[in-house]
Amino acid sequence: MPDRPALERRTAARKPTALKSEVAAYKRRRIIEEASHLFFLHGYEATTLDAVAEQLNVTKPFIYSYYRNKSELLSEICQTGIQLSLTALDEALAVEGSATEQLKMVVERVARIIIENQRYISVYISEEKSLDPDDARRIRELRHRFDTRLSTLLAMGKDRGEFEFEDASRTAIWISGLLSWIANWYHEGGRWSATEVVMDAISIIMKIVAKKRG
Amino acid sequence: MPDRPALERRTAARKPTALKSEVAAYKRRRIIEEASHLFFLHGYEATTLDAVAEQLNVTKPFIYSYYRNKSELLSEICQTGIQLSLTALDEALAVEGSATEQLKMVVERVARIIIENQRYISVYISEEKSLDPDDARRIRELRHRFDTRLSTLLAMGKDRGEFEFEDASRTAIWISGLLSWIANWYHEGGRWSATEVVMDAISIIMKIVAKKRG
Repeated sequence: MPDRPALERRTAARKPTALKSEVAAYKRRRIIEEASHLFFLHGYEATTLDAVAEQLNVTKPFIYSYYRNKSELLSEICQTGIQLSLTALDEALAVEGSATEQLKMVVERVARIIIENQRYISVYISEEKSLDPDDARRIRELRHRFDTRLSTLLAMGKDRGEFEFEDASRTAIWISGLLSWIANWYHEGGRWSATEVVMDAISIIMKIVAKKRG
Repeated sequence: MPDRPALERRTAARKPTALKSEVAAYKRRRIIEEASHLFFLHGYEATTLDAVAEQLNVTKPFIYSYYRNKSELLSEICQTGIQLSLTALDEALAVEGSATEQLKMVVERVARIIIENQRYISVYISEEKSLDPDDARRIRELRHRFDTRLSTLLAMGKDRGEFEFEDASRTAIWISGLLSWIANWYHEGGRWSATEVVMDAISIIMKIVAKKRG
């Protein structure tokens, strides 16, 4: 651990604009959080930007200084889960290791992302039809990209003799589905802890790709 | 195969009200089909009963003679998939056989139900929030009943040494999720046939419950 003067020097070296952009990011995140809460409870159509502003005790122009319109809010909510998941997947693929190790890492991280962003993913599942068609297409493409990269990892593991299954693309879709579905049934503070769910997801998915008993 | 006179005698023996109630059931089904189509495309809130009537080239009073209101339409759409699945599960459990055979039968039948009722299930997933709270609770209970009975079957298979997994309840939820998720990604006339998807679901779910090597 660095001593205090070293720490202070390092802090002092941060760019002067850092706090400002941090605060802006924080505000954007809070707007998104409250909007997703209202969209989840009442639906996108029935939720006004006034209601979002009221929830945050700010004005509607304040929201307009961060988001162009309600549709942009929805788009950001809907793409959060898949963007984080894609990043996690790419990071896991960049780590040296067997396909088994990489797959375990992907599942662990993506399961946690889904649990932590459950509300956003639920809104995406129920409000995909309310998205601007271009946004809907773009997000579908991100999901497709996730499935394709996962499928490549699976195929690689099969080639190396680590995995066994009939069709890599379809197996990737089943695995994505298992993970996405967590958003539908997990309850924070419910019967199972997040860690139990994550560990169970790993164990089940490793069974899906496991080689059959010979 | 019975000869023609015998067949005619049997047909003649049908109750005289049969056709009338068949036609009523047919009309109810057609109303539901068109409503689910519109709910899926435009959302429940944005769809009027007038639009449903127009789609069928009938009057709104005609619809009111079959359904009290739009909410009852949604409720019937949302409960169709789970009710058919519960019946299929109970029928499979009533058949003599190993837990393995029963589970394969459940998965096969439920996967087909989900593919055949894909539109209804998609509407349920996206419009659960629009349901009357009592209906939403009732349908959740049906889903819970499905998971509980499936979990009992899994536990029985584990006791008999056919299956292996950590927790029967959680495994039942993963399996339900895998099946439900088919409604989200399956495309009729797409890359994979219904039969391929059903066969793949069976193979993947049997791997999930399979005993480990060694």
